[in-house]
Amino acid sequence: MTDRDTGRALAHPEPGQIRLEEVLHALSDPVRLSIVRELATAASELACSDFEVPVTKSTTTHHFRVLRESGVVRQAYRGTAKLNGLRRDELDALFPGLLDSVLSAADAEQGRLTG
Amino acid sequence: MTDRDTGRALAHPEPGQIRLEEVLHALSDPVRLSIVRELATAASELACSDFEVPVTKSTTTHHFRVLRESGVVRQAYRGTAKLNGLRRDELDALFPGLLDSVLSAADAEQGRLTG
Repeated sequence: MTDRDTGRALAHPEPGQIRLEEVLHALSDPVRLSIVRELATAASELACSDFEVPVTKSTTTHHFRVLRESGVVRQAYRGTAKLNGLRRDELDALFPGLLDSVLSAADAEQGRLTG
Repeated sequence: MTDRDTGRALAHPEPGQIRLEEVLHALSDPVRLSIVRELATAASELACSDFEVPVTKSTTTHHFRVLRESGVVRQAYRGTAKLNGLRRDELDALFPGLLDSVLSAADAEQGRLTG
């Protein structure tokens, strides 16, 4: 955890600091991918506690941190809650089509596995 | 290494066994991504020794194994060499647009970082 993380502002990479490999790594975990898929369909930002994930709270916190530090989500405190939003516009500008193709692939795979 | 790996036939997942998360994980390493980019532009299959990568031979072997076991590349022995080919058609059928968007994203990032 960096110094900035311990304050009220959370550290985020600028668009120019976002790296493809880190984004792919962030998306390569099933729990993180499920979080991203839920954020992609959410009408507004979501608190970490809004997600039903099959892992402990501290593991969930870790996953959100990986998503934030890779540039996939933006987190901000709202009171004691952390609100999360997908950095869709910035990711689309950096890597056109990537996020959509991953989300579509996740939908297709879920359809194949459960259909 | 599985029993099958020690023989002359190398184990590959069938298309129905390929999982998005494993593909994204395979692509999330810089060395593996560079291998995939080179295979994507190659006119034919390439031997592992054809790649100039900044890692040891055993690490290279590990990376090719991750690529093979995730379903990203197909490997076959030709004499003592392993020849590698991208499973592009199968990946495109499973995850339309994904591989192309990752390859384009890698090109765009390289352009930004070196341009």
